[in-house]
Amino acid sequence: MALWFEEEQGGQARKFRVERTIYQAVSPFQRIDIVETSALGRMLLLDGLVMCSEGDEFIYHEMMAHVPLFSHPKGRSVLIIGGGDGGTAREVLRHPSVERCTLVEIDGMVVDACKAHFHQTACAFEDPRLTLYVQDGIAFVAQSEERFDLILVDSTDPQGLAAPLFGDEFYRHIFRLLTDDGMVVAQAESAYFQPDQQRAVLARMNSLFPRNYLYQYFNLSYPGNMWGFALGSKGPCPLLDFREVDLNASGMEFRYYSAAIHRASFALPAFQARNVAGLVTRFA
Amino acid sequence: MALWFEEEQGGQARKFRVERTIYQAVSPFQRIDIVETSALGRMLLLDGLVMCSEGDEFIYHEMMAHVPLFSHPKGRSVLIIGGGDGGTAREVLRHPSVERCTLVEIDGMVVDACKAHFHQTACAFEDPRLTLYVQDGIAFVAQSEERFDLILVDSTDPQGLAAPLFGDEFYRHIFRLLTDDGMVVAQAESAYFQPDQQRAVLARMNSLFPRNYLYQYFNLSYPGNMWGFALGSKGPCPLLDFREVDLNASGMEFRYYSAAIHRASFALPAFQARNVAGLVTRFA
Repeated sequence: MALWFEEEQGGQARKFRVERTIYQAVSPFQRIDIVETSALGRMLLLDGLVMCSEGDEFIYHEMMAHVPLFSHPKGRSVLIIGGGDGGTAREVLRHPSVERCTLVEIDGMVVDACKAHFHQTACAFEDPRLTLYVQDGIAFVAQSEERFDLILVDSTDPQGLAAPLFGDEFYRHIFRLLTDDGMVVAQAESAYFQPDQQRAVLARMNSLFPRNYLYQYFNLSYPGNMWGFALGSKGPCPLLDFREVDLNASGMEFRYYSAAIHRASFALPAFQARNVAGLVTRFA
Repeated sequence: MALWFEEEQGGQARKFRVERTIYQAVSPFQRIDIVETSALGRMLLLDGLVMCSEGDEFIYHEMMAHVPLFSHPKGRSVLIIGGGDGGTAREVLRHPSVERCTLVEIDGMVVDACKAHFHQTACAFEDPRLTLYVQDGIAFVAQSEERFDLILVDSTDPQGLAAPLFGDEFYRHIFRLLTDDGMVVAQAESAYFQPDQQRAVLARMNSLFPRNYLYQYFNLSYPGNMWGFALGSKGPCPLLDFREVDLNASGMEFRYYSAAIHRASFALPAFQARNVAGLVTRFA
């Protein structure tokens, strides 16, 4: 018997053969599945949507963490909203400059499931510099008085549970919590299939941050495929302030990220450049 | 009733909802389908594999044509092997420098089907500079004594009908038919899912051409998603000899391609750079 799982999105889908089910549960917030796929190894699904896979999670997590961390002059404190699988934290914590990484995940069962069955990313929770809050990210940013150099919004799509993470009030608090040269990075959907959502994320950042950018990467497990990150900055420019010298001196080895990829990821296809014209800052 | 079509590849698949079937036939070479999908418009399939869609064909065809044409000093004569849908020829023929474009497609029924039902790409066949040969590309290159500035190998995957288009003898003829500063571009599969095939294409070019490169783009309709083109050159370097000034002066409008995308497409993710190390020429 061949079992398949699929994620549909507007008349198209991404489909994976499932060797076995590792974990299934319904939390107070969502349905959680971890399955073993033949194409991309273990895969974490929330409410039936792919979050990450063993095979390609390195791409998303490296790009979310290292692009801002090698653009900011010295990222000491990092806040991650969401990201309960631990993958983004794992990459953040590879930087010796990071003294403290705070991860706020609304669903403690996601963290526990990954600690038990997705060690490749959940290994991050063993780092003593990581503090986990099992709490609503919206409430956390509204109440916190701490300051962060970087905030990474590692959320699901802008519907249901994660919808407020794409809202105005959330971003006003993000801005308030960031240090004077702070930066925020948020997952920003697919340039081709969700152009309006990509505009909306950038427009929201634009109303607050002096500099706003979009960069992207190949996502092998999402139906949208051409996937973007929005970056809002109070100061540093991810190209002009890119610390390539430090990257080369770091001795860090990556699977996707590199100096060339860092720069190339900000090159937007013509249709996308037109879609976000006026919302992204020119490099000059 | 909802009809879906899917293309599977090693435990993963890309799937599209089909509104209606436009054309179905079995030629002496393959099964040909043109269907209307809700996500990406009309789609051409050969033996059940997606060749191109109205929605995203611009990406593949712009990248196959404009990267070499804006790298070569003056592409006057272009040979396309395969590409019976006409999309690559359409983009090639946008360059006023192109005096003659020869298209060799083994399956005349593909051309006829596209002329009847896929005008978006088949419009190329109306250009008087285009000469169509309905003939095996292998036989054509073995017999031809013509010289071409650019040869574009717009083929299906390296199995069945197209397998010889990935072979040594074919490439020896390609080399012979190219002018002294000639270049060849061939579709080179997915960096992540077919790393061995990508190495093989490059190794073949490497045994003949002094300069060899890999560049890539987002493919929204292939399961492999992160898709590559291999470029072999007798002389011009696609970065150092990139005619950006001419591109900017051309007034040509693109949907995917741009100067920034031209350069960025040669940035290879770390795992891919390691896979093809020694087979691609350094930019220096």
